[in-house]
Amino acid sequence: MEIENKLCSKVEECYHILGKKWVGLVIHTLMEEPKRFSEIHAFIPNLSKRVLNERMKELEENGIVLRNVIADRPVRTEYSLTKKGTELGRSLKALENWADKWL
Amino acid sequence: MEIENKLCSKVEECYHILGKKWVGLVIHTLMEEPKRFSEIHAFIPNLSKRVLNERMKELEENGIVLRNVIADRPVRTEYSLTKKGTELGRSLKALENWADKWL
Repeated sequence: MEIENKLCSKVEECYHILGKKWVGLVIHTLMEEPKRFSEIHAFIPNLSKRVLNERMKELEENGIVLRNVIADRPVRTEYSLTKKGTELGRSLKALENWADKWL
Repeated sequence: MEIENKLCSKVEECYHILGKKWVGLVIHTLMEEPKRFSEIHAFIPNLSKRVLNERMKELEENGIVLRNVIADRPVRTEYSLTKKGTELGRSLKALENWADKWL
């Protein structure tokens, strides 16, 4: 994935996505099942609601997360992973196995 | 890797390591062969020398990178991945494959 001493832009981009604080954990948290904003926040309490809100917007823009509005009373909003996001989460399993062994 | 709604601390830690800007790219860059500071910098030109220096120190402290001083004239310093770091780099291959497909 390297062409003449230059980084492949796709590799660069994926590390930029993951290189934003909390992104990996948010994706990990959504792997099990869709979750509401408050549920994601409960999983990662050190992450402020303001920053979580920013991250969810960015992940939505990147096509990794889907924001689903459920016409309940009151209206509920849930976040789920897209196919792209689910495959990203799966690709991170190897990293989590590394963590299990080495950290 | 989740215990009763709580994130496993190892998973949390690995995403904290990767969630620092540039870390993934630095590890990617060292996967091929050991490199001098200036060579790593040449691969990732948008990364300032000050921040690269910080990251290398953190990666050394985490046991991911080894700083080798070579008693040449003039003395050379090279960075290589430890076993822990090499396995981390390998675990990131799945992520790079994801990038290749989706980005």
